Amino acid sequence: MDELGRIDSSQLESLLKEHPKSMVTLMHANNEIGTLHPLEKIGQMCKEYEAFFHSDTVQAIGHYKHDLKTLAIQGMNASAHKFHGPKGVGFMYLSKDSRIAPLIIGGGQERDMRGGTENVAGIAGLAKAMEMAYENMEEHHAYIQSLKDRMVEKIKSSIEGVKFNGDLSNSLYTVLNVSLPPANASEMLLFDLDLRGISASGGSACAAGANTGSHVLTALGVDPDRGAVRFSFSKNNTPEEIDFAATQLSEIYQVKA
Amino acid sequence: MDELGRIDSSQLESLLKEHPKSMVTLMHANNEIGTLHPLEKIGQMCKEYEAFFHSDTVQAIGHYKHDLKTLAIQGMNASAHKFHGPKGVGFMYLSKDSRIAPLIIGGGQERDMRGGTENVAGIAGLAKAMEMAYENMEEHHAYIQSLKDRMVEKIKSSIEGVKFNGDLSNSLYTVLNVSLPPANASEMLLFDLDLRGISASGGSACAAGANTGSHVLTALGVDPDRGAVRFSFSKNNTPEEIDFAATQLSEIYQVKA
Repeated sequence: MDELGRIDSSQLESLLKEHPKSMVTLMHANNEIGTLHPLEKIGQMCKEYEAFFHSDTVQAIGHYKHDLKTLAIQGMNASAHKFHGPKGVGFMYLSKDSRIAPLIIGGGQERDMRGGTENVAGIAGLAKAMEMAYENMEEHHAYIQSLKDRMVEKIKSSIEGVKFNGDLSNSLYTVLNVSLPPANASEMLLFDLDLRGISASGGSACAAGANTGSHVLTALGVDPDRGAVRFSFSKNNTPEEIDFAATQLSEIYQVKA
Repeated sequence: MDELGRIDSSQLESLLKEHPKSMVTLMHANNEIGTLHPLEKIGQMCKEYEAFFHSDTVQAIGHYKHDLKTLAIQGMNASAHKFHGPKGVGFMYLSKDSRIAPLIIGGGQERDMRGGTENVAGIAGLAKAMEMAYENMEEHHAYIQSLKDRMVEKIKSSIEGVKFNGDLSNSLYTVLNVSLPPANASEMLLFDLDLRGISASGGSACAAGANTGSHVLTALGVDPDRGAVRFSFSKNNTPEEIDFAATQLSEIYQVKA
């Protein structure tokens, strides 16, 4: 990975040359920084070296189209709540010619892949949510990207030295990982945002000097003294909410800085 | 096990003497034949020999009370749909002093026991269904037992040579496993019942002479030439439905016999 979380495909190729018929598993989009991996390219490479290619597509399904007719992939996963479906239900796609051993045995359910009675209501909810996600995907994509862009501009103009973790030019339109210059008491950032009505995620090295942070940011070599806060956007957010969140973040940060 | 599916507790004790600090896992009630195991007695025995005692209580929870203050048990399981809750959600009880290694890793959810976002709606539905199951348990127990008794009497009086698999004197009041004398074409029994509007289960050696039957009945040494059909009863069934089902079973059986 480089410092933006992009994989080095020449390294992947040399690993595959050395170990053909391996298993390769790479997220379509990283959940913390949003960086997208090129599934088509990786899939073709895996096909060439007869590797089993699996992708954790949980962040991407319902937001990007995955065409299984053209994508060379053996396994993919989804979680319904990532595209406005019910919590606690998801699915795994597994290509017909790529059977794997089940993890949960004991019944013939789900084609012998998982014992246990199915969550029928959840499955129906997932299917409906996915159908709805596909209906207006381009429109939602453009709208949510505009919210993210607005957030980037607002934050850039109000917080000096701010950066963004991940590859801003090729990342999930639903996620923005803000990297704040080192500041005192930044471990209170999420708490302060919450008090002001903004739900954001940490999962990162918020405490100045502490090394208990995000394994993702650590792997990218991000300065552990910088605070990191992750905002997520949906079709239900408004430009006014973006402006409010950016202003609050800036205010909290100025006080602490 | 004896031929009614009752465990030999003296054998269990000698096994525990030989292998103390083992894991013992026994269903509270067998799903096919309904035979109940004495959890209190087995629990005390396991405690004496410091064994980990787990019970698959899926058939029993919501139909019998399990008092965890007095029951010496480390683990128990439930499925919501067994007591009129939603499908695809259940729970595992694990005593505080008996931590086990998780099967599904990758997240800190459910106290590190299972990675993944919880099925919140399902959990709420399970809790409500369990609350409702406990509210009128004695009343429902008596009513459903009366339906089962009625079914036993009706079938006994109309089918000569009929028997019942399992320990009829100490079994789930919700399940009745009917053992039919050998008859031609009995593999069609479930199909014929279904055509007449009766949903019953097989999971047993229905096909005359075939040995692909129920592992439970095979373990009990039941004659594989006898047909077996399992009826389940709930608080929503009526005596009229019992009479109808018994009559239909008898008619189908007489034709085939």
